[in-house]
Amino acid sequence: MIQTQTKTTVKEPRITLVGAGPGDADLITIKGIKALQTADVVLYDALVNEELLEFAPAHATKVYVGKRSGDHSFSQENINKLMIDYALNYGHVVRLKGGDPFVFGRGYEELDYAADYSIPAQVIPGISSSIGVPGLQGIPVTHRGLSESFWVVTGTTSDGKVSADLYQAAKTNATVVVLMGIHKLAEIAEIFKAEGKNRLPVAVIQSGSTVNEKVAIGVVDTIVEVAEENKISSPALIVFGDVVSLHPKFQPIREFYDIIAQE
Amino acid sequence: MIQTQTKTTVKEPRITLVGAGPGDADLITIKGIKALQTADVVLYDALVNEELLEFAPAHATKVYVGKRSGDHSFSQENINKLMIDYALNYGHVVRLKGGDPFVFGRGYEELDYAADYSIPAQVIPGISSSIGVPGLQGIPVTHRGLSESFWVVTGTTSDGKVSADLYQAAKTNATVVVLMGIHKLAEIAEIFKAEGKNRLPVAVIQSGSTVNEKVAIGVVDTIVEVAEENKISSPALIVFGDVVSLHPKFQPIREFYDIIAQE
Repeated sequence: MIQTQTKTTVKEPRITLVGAGPGDADLITIKGIKALQTADVVLYDALVNEELLEFAPAHATKVYVGKRSGDHSFSQENINKLMIDYALNYGHVVRLKGGDPFVFGRGYEELDYAADYSIPAQVIPGISSSIGVPGLQGIPVTHRGLSESFWVVTGTTSDGKVSADLYQAAKTNATVVVLMGIHKLAEIAEIFKAEGKNRLPVAVIQSGSTVNEKVAIGVVDTIVEVAEENKISSPALIVFGDVVSLHPKFQPIREFYDIIAQE
Repeated sequence: MIQTQTKTTVKEPRITLVGAGPGDADLITIKGIKALQTADVVLYDALVNEELLEFAPAHATKVYVGKRSGDHSFSQENINKLMIDYALNYGHVVRLKGGDPFVFGRGYEELDYAADYSIPAQVIPGISSSIGVPGLQGIPVTHRGLSESFWVVTGTTSDGKVSADLYQAAKTNATVVVLMGIHKLAEIAEIFKAEGKNRLPVAVIQSGSTVNEKVAIGVVDTIVEVAEENKISSPALIVFGDVVSLHPKFQPIREFYDIIAQE
């Protein structure tokens, strides 16, 4: 009995990075839920569905460490330090992150920090919005005859710019998914125009998988206007590629260009 | 009462495509489990963990429709037809697919087929092995300073060839993940050699997230040999990119090349 008590009172520090998925609470994995159920502390990001916190035990401390625009009080370094402090003092820290921890999630930096303190850490993948959000709109990132690959690029690198990789991506046949690029939609569309892809189908999807989900469908030449008409705002992702033509909203666009072609 | 009975006996046909994730049964989503719990029929693929079938009701029919090599009895067309027949006769068909239904999963073809018969269909995303399997090995597909994008390509197109997109991918700074390419590892390595990327880090991961998981780490020049030494076989994916250097097994390789450089 005494040994059992000791085991429960002196907790071994450990850290689990959990991908919470794109927003719908039901899009977390069973493994992610199991990690939450044994959490002593949950550190969660801005885009995480707060309903998920209910899976953590009542005694667990829940700490919001989101970095919303205009509120940069939680730097990555602060988060890393908090994570270590909580693990050393309370035991199992679940670091709950939107999407997948390794898709522009700075997850490896957190793993690396834990390793510096010899704190055991593991990763539980999540549904990345890059695949899941187009999928929920019925847009497959790959489809026979339309796309044999997909390329996921950040619209905001560490120095605030569009990734140089996007200039390469615009030249290829890959489905191109741009995360964190909605504020630069016009600039990004220009990159595709420069490659002569004015009529390549494009989708912009805001808050995919949540009640706030919105979609704008167009082509490279029209997407900025269509996104404005639909009042699309952050968080949103952009999908460039012929696979977007499979979306029901693309049908009238196809017909419009067919009529123009006949005139 | 009579109305309720009618409702339960005459079932509306519907189809749900569910991504089962890379293999670990706990890597399915809550939403996927909920779909299984209301299934009348489950049609499942070769790479799906059969433990998941236990979430379906006892009355549900479970049908294996996998296409293993050498056993092509279930063509895609057969699967499409079975799916429709079961939906019309039994009600809710869950089409349980490995990974995510839209990542080389031919999921859209199944959706399209359902639409032809006016059967309501929805998609529930799954953890794609392209992101989750490297992640579980501690390899992030993106990482600041190493990779601003990742490109997922098929190693086996519909005509059995390596995707032409891979020749483009080998020229870029993207992390390149090749699915279904293990049987062509030597041919694929040559594509990267032709771009002078002989020392680019490479990982080959077999049966990621399962008890049969194996990993081989090398560089483009050595990966064929290392994969053979480790007896890697299908299913396996290949990751090309500097992010692979973050794997613990890469450390001795780095030291080896550092010594050569000093000589």
